[in-house]
Amino acid sequence: MDLATLFESLPFSDHLGIEIDNVGDGTATGHIALESYHSSNPGRMIAHGGVPYALADTVGGAAVISQTASVSPTVDMRIDYLSPATGDRLVAEAEVIRLGNSVATVAVELTDETGDQIATARGVYKTDGGDGETAWTSEAERAELE
Amino acid sequence: MDLATLFESLPFSDHLGIEIDNVGDGTATGHIALESYHSSNPGRMIAHGGVPYALADTVGGAAVISQTASVSPTVDMRIDYLSPATGDRLVAEAEVIRLGNSVATVAVELTDETGDQIATARGVYKTDGGDGETAWTSEAERAELE
Amino acid sequence: MDLATLFESLPFSDHLGIEIDNVGDGTATGHIALESYHSSNPGRMIAHGGVPYALADTVGGAAVISQTASVSPTVDMRIDYLSPATGDRLVAEAEVIRLGNSVATVAVELTDETGDQIATARGVYKTDGGDGETAWTSEAERAELE
Amino acid sequence: MDLATLFESLPFSDHLGIEIDNVGDGTATGHIALESYHSSNPGRMIAHGGVPYALADTVGGAAVISQTASVSPTVDMRIDYLSPATGDRLVAEAEVIRLGNSVATVAVELTDETGDQIATARGVYKTDGGDGETAWTSEAERAELE
Repeated sequence: MDLATLFESLPFSDHLGIEIDNVGDGTATGHIALESYHSSNPGRMIAHGGVPYALADTVGGAAVISQTASVSPTVDMRIDYLSPATGDRLVAEAEVIRLGNSVATVAVELTDETGDQIATARGVYKTDGGDGETAWTSEAERAELE
Repeated sequence: MDLATLFESLPFSDHLGIEIDNVGDGTATGHIALESYHSSNPGRMIAHGGVPYALADTVGGAAVISQTASVSPTVDMRIDYLSPATGDRLVAEAEVIRLGNSVATVAVELTDETGDQIATARGVYKTDGGDGETAWTSEAERAELE
Repeated sequence: MDLATLFESLPFSDHLGIEIDNVGDGTATGHIALESYHSSNPGRMIAHGGVPYALADTVGGAAVISQTASVSPTVDMRIDYLSPATGDRLVAEAEVIRLGNSVATVAVELTDETGDQIATARGVYKTDGGDGETAWTSEAERAELE
Repeated sequence: MDLATLFESLPFSDHLGIEIDNVGDGTATGHIALESYHSSNPGRMIAHGGVPYALADTVGGAAVISQTASVSPTVDMRIDYLSPATGDRLVAEAEVIRLGNSVATVAVELTDETGDQIATARGVYKTDGGDGETAWTSEAERAELE
């Protein structure tokens, strides 16, 4: 299973319609085709703040794993909202901007289908496979990633 | 419609099973009963980072609206993950720690059903109804909130 | 007094050697010539984390004021450290990436004299002159900014 | 040299008047007696945002080192400003809220001399002595910490 397929197959990614378009060399891109269930408004599309966040967190993790080949739990993430996501599509591009032995820092930019900025995020992920927190993964999964 | 019902009726809240338990005086509490679709792992429950985030963002907004009676778009939020959410339930308590004319700052603490800390978040929300960004709400909704 | 001179004349800017090189159209650049007192290490230069932060906060505020001509208190800021600042100079470039009626979001990139990345920051500032928090400024200063 | 003395003796701590009052068991407290040079205003005391930040970063690092006995570079920190610091004293209390093999998460609360909240911060620090980034410390310093 390649990394894009792996990240799309996470149950919550599937529940949100997260698609991973590209993963490699410390970068990852993905998107969500916005549906009515993503909205924070019963009457029309304004994506809930959790939608771009979940996409950012997911592509950020994919970017890290493309370099570490190991599980990479998120330590923290900040998202800044720049304009409401009212269009058809949310697109995220993640790039590892610092890769260390223990943690990586990732920048994620989110746009709509016209390229307008929706949000920007910064996250920190572990790069050493977690603190023996075996809850995050099984030995089988680790093996799969290597 | 009271505020708890309003926040539960947002399509994305419904899609994630977000329940609002209490709203008032600058505070709000809510929870998610964790289901397999919330997981970031096909084989067992480890809630995806987007799950506590979406809950934190939602209860944070509810806490702000309880004081402003106006739409309160999120400006930014940071979440720090303290331990993986592997249990049955995710609980969030939000409190407005600064209420200004233009923005409010909110602290959110997330725990599992045993009270163990899962994550902590800090968010900033607009308190003046947004910058004429009518996409966030309709006049009808504003009226409903007042 | 122009904006660059105003920001350099803040007592704390002066105490840290902050120089503002350019301000205008929602951007600002500045630098610090690193001296031994900026270090977190008695024996050699490794700038304390507060040094790039103070520079980022200051140039971020200058970028906002260049568009609002009003006092712009910082609401929050996050800084991510990418490599230790061990060189002669710390340079910061700030850009307003969202300007609203009540708040602005600013991106700041920090580099050393060779252009290597030292840190990246995201901050939110008020754009409406503060919540009547007259502590932040005097009427005379407001007049000066207009 | 004990940890409080070590942190006070950092050149930048000395330049800012940072005093460490207590360090131990994953907590640290410190303060700054505010002087005119800390102000962002030529005419009266309103501490520059970099002042509470530098104090928060420093006591946060001290709290981590009290548990790890190893150099603990800051990975990132966010600060939220709650009210302007216009008094005589800035006090910070830091607590490690998650201690892992590779990183620790720290909460810092900042108040004035009357106990009113000034700011709140969340930071992430490395706990494994850095990524072989020997710039952060010398072997002699490591030895001193052990």
